[in-house]
Amino acid sequence: MGQTIKVGLMGLGIVGTAFVQALSQYQSDEHLFSEKIIEVKKILVRHPERHPDIRSRLTTNARDILDDPEISVVVELMGGMEPARSLILEALKGGKAVMTANKEVVAQAGREIWEASRKARAAFYFEGAVGAGIPVIQGMRRGLTGNRVQSIAGVLNGTTNYILTRMTQEGLGFSEALREAQHQGYAEADPTDDIAGYDARRKIAILATVGFNTWVSPEDIQVDGIAGITQDDIAYGLSQGWVLKLIATARRQHDTMNIAVRPTFLPHNHPVAHVSGAYNAIWIEAEPVGNVMYYGMGAGGKPTASAILSDVLQSVRDLNGPYQEFWSIGRHPKLDASGNIRGMSYWRLEVVDRPGTLAQVADQLAKHGLSLRSVYQKPLLGGHALLFLVHHKCAEHLWRTAWTSIAQLPVVEHVGSPVAIWESEQEHSDH
Amino acid sequence: MGQTIKVGLMGLGIVGTAFVQALSQYQSDEHLFSEKIIEVKKILVRHPERHPDIRSRLTTNARDILDDPEISVVVELMGGMEPARSLILEALKGGKAVMTANKEVVAQAGREIWEASRKARAAFYFEGAVGAGIPVIQGMRRGLTGNRVQSIAGVLNGTTNYILTRMTQEGLGFSEALREAQHQGYAEADPTDDIAGYDARRKIAILATVGFNTWVSPEDIQVDGIAGITQDDIAYGLSQGWVLKLIATARRQHDTMNIAVRPTFLPHNHPVAHVSGAYNAIWIEAEPVGNVMYYGMGAGGKPTASAILSDVLQSVRDLNGPYQEFWSIGRHPKLDASGNIRGMSYWRLEVVDRPGTLAQVADQLAKHGLSLRSVYQKPLLGGHALLFLVHHKCAEHLWRTAWTSIAQLPVVEHVGSPVAIWESEQEHSDH
Repeated sequence: MGQTIKVGLMGLGIVGTAFVQALSQYQSDEHLFSEKIIEVKKILVRHPERHPDIRSRLTTNARDILDDPEISVVVELMGGMEPARSLILEALKGGKAVMTANKEVVAQAGREIWEASRKARAAFYFEGAVGAGIPVIQGMRRGLTGNRVQSIAGVLNGTTNYILTRMTQEGLGFSEALREAQHQGYAEADPTDDIAGYDARRKIAILATVGFNTWVSPEDIQVDGIAGITQDDIAYGLSQGWVLKLIATARRQHDTMNIAVRPTFLPHNHPVAHVSGAYNAIWIEAEPVGNVMYYGMGAGGKPTASAILSDVLQSVRDLNGPYQEFWSIGRHPKLDASGNIRGMSYWRLEVVDRPGTLAQVADQLAKHGLSLRSVYQKPLLGGHALLFLVHHKCAEHLWRTAWTSIAQLPVVEHVGSPVAIWESEQEHSDH
Repeated sequence: MGQTIKVGLMGLGIVGTAFVQALSQYQSDEHLFSEKIIEVKKILVRHPERHPDIRSRLTTNARDILDDPEISVVVELMGGMEPARSLILEALKGGKAVMTANKEVVAQAGREIWEASRKARAAFYFEGAVGAGIPVIQGMRRGLTGNRVQSIAGVLNGTTNYILTRMTQEGLGFSEALREAQHQGYAEADPTDDIAGYDARRKIAILATVGFNTWVSPEDIQVDGIAGITQDDIAYGLSQGWVLKLIATARRQHDTMNIAVRPTFLPHNHPVAHVSGAYNAIWIEAEPVGNVMYYGMGAGGKPTASAILSDVLQSVRDLNGPYQEFWSIGRHPKLDASGNIRGMSYWRLEVVDRPGTLAQVADQLAKHGLSLRSVYQKPLLGGHALLFLVHHKCAEHLWRTAWTSIAQLPVVEHVGSPVAIWESEQEHSDH
């Protein structure tokens, strides 16, 4: 047989273990490119005593990997910012190819890593950082090479999608669905990062960076989470033929792009509306291909191991070829955070049910230049009512201001989270 | 700027024209890898007088491309077997990289082309031959590298999917939906190749070849078309929560694989059930990634041009690197054409409505060892009735024999096409 490629693995949790197994399975099968043998030479762990069967390959010292000239590929699966970021940078500076599934590092420190990769001409791959095994980074970089990506929209967080699916299919309330997700292992004890949309925000930042050849910092992206979503919202949507999902979108227009993470109503016959449970999907509009969707499990040891394995095999294949720059940060487009993007949104207001209430709400809307598309009132016990309203397309900063001022009206007890309306539902609604 | 890559294009129909435009658009944008300029130097056409604006680049003689040492990449977009097949072989023998979207040539002559490509170490790409712009070949070869593909199931023919979608959503009959498809340009004047499933069969042969590293000849694949499907079948399925699609499947078990093209009932909440109109989708089960789906337009000039453009850019990128063999024909698995695959199917029988009819049908089923899962009788005018029956899982050769013998019973006037039941619906039905 031919060349042996030596890999240094950092982290042996669920994904690391699944990667080692998948690599071994791959090499025991009869496969392509088998002239190269890939060997995991050293594994950085915190608790070597937990893995007595492979003790000889374990180390607690990262230098054993970074300083080993035989190791040409480093797989970082520790998670979190530090020490992962520093180790990745150092490995690249040492000329080693690096693979990671660490979305924090890619989203927050991606620019610096990209520069280090470029400078050292050492490959950096991160397929597993978005959508686990769904080959969407490769998909944009290779499969859709030559296309101009116009928009990316995705169900990128399995936890919130599981919760919203259960609320939609079983009529559960938010808290009940969240508890169930925690019980099933789909949500953390502190679920804030998922529920508030921060996880989806990091992923859409990465996808926009790759799709638009630019650099997007997650902190600059507007995010609305799903903590304020109730069964009333879900049920109202279903009555309109809409399904509620947490959608991360990135859209390019000329030299600017708009990126947001928002609860969104999709038409029930849209393919993304049928992405259920812990699955993820990425919907891409590009020229000339049109609409393309990638779908698969968005988390988990084995799906993420698939992404890492594919990245490792790619990099091994490319080792003898010229340095290939998969991730280019160009000069455009720039993020438009001014709220100029036009769209429709839905609001749920809990109001005091007495004459003049609707007039006050309508008056505020008119003052801010918003035009109503639909309004529906549902009586509640105790002299209260729910108002479900959808306004026609207008600039986001306008409707956000109107929403805030309506929340302050004395007749309004509570305003639910705004829910965006999926673009294709808006086409005939420009006022 | 750097190197100029010269391309010879064979065929300037809808896809060829869209490719030239997409390439020009790509190169006028600010893009990656722009250090290489790609120039379409010569275009083989039959009627140069139809393209007066680019007359100087046109030729009617293939030798002008094959014998031009400056041309390193040949794009074949003529369609049909000959002369396309011979020209591809000759271009490869001359060391030129070849791209095609020609599913006939890839499916029928793929093995011979693969051998020529390997011998000459000249790249052969065919992303556009299946699912137009959906990057599924790249997806399996690159994005899912390292995975073991277990099954591939797809909606691979836009014409039949358009017809079935209209029958499902609008309640149209088959002939009416077909006429509409012809009127919309989705179906040919002679629609046999699509309706009978031959087009889908070529595509699943290509996907199985790529996914399983083997060689599959389309002629060996069992195919049932949709010409016998009626509104009664569609409506019965909907009453069970099932959606009817023409599904091409390839499944590997140990050293054998089963491949078929069949009308199939899918559970309405399955993502593939929502692939509507002229869209295509490919559902892949692989280890370790799990389930992955690729979705997009399955035909058309621009989507196919996207695939060609991506193949050309890949090949240009790889020109300086080592020869990469993307398509390997290994030793396994072999096609199992013995009909041993177990499954459920649905049949519609038009019978004479008199005492003893059901007993005769049930008797025949029992004789062949088939067990009924469900039966529903619907009265018709004129002393006739429809019987809708679904049998439990059994080997395909058994239920095909039973189906034939029931069709010959004197009380049975007509038997509709059998419809397969999607695998996941069958899990608890093994008798």
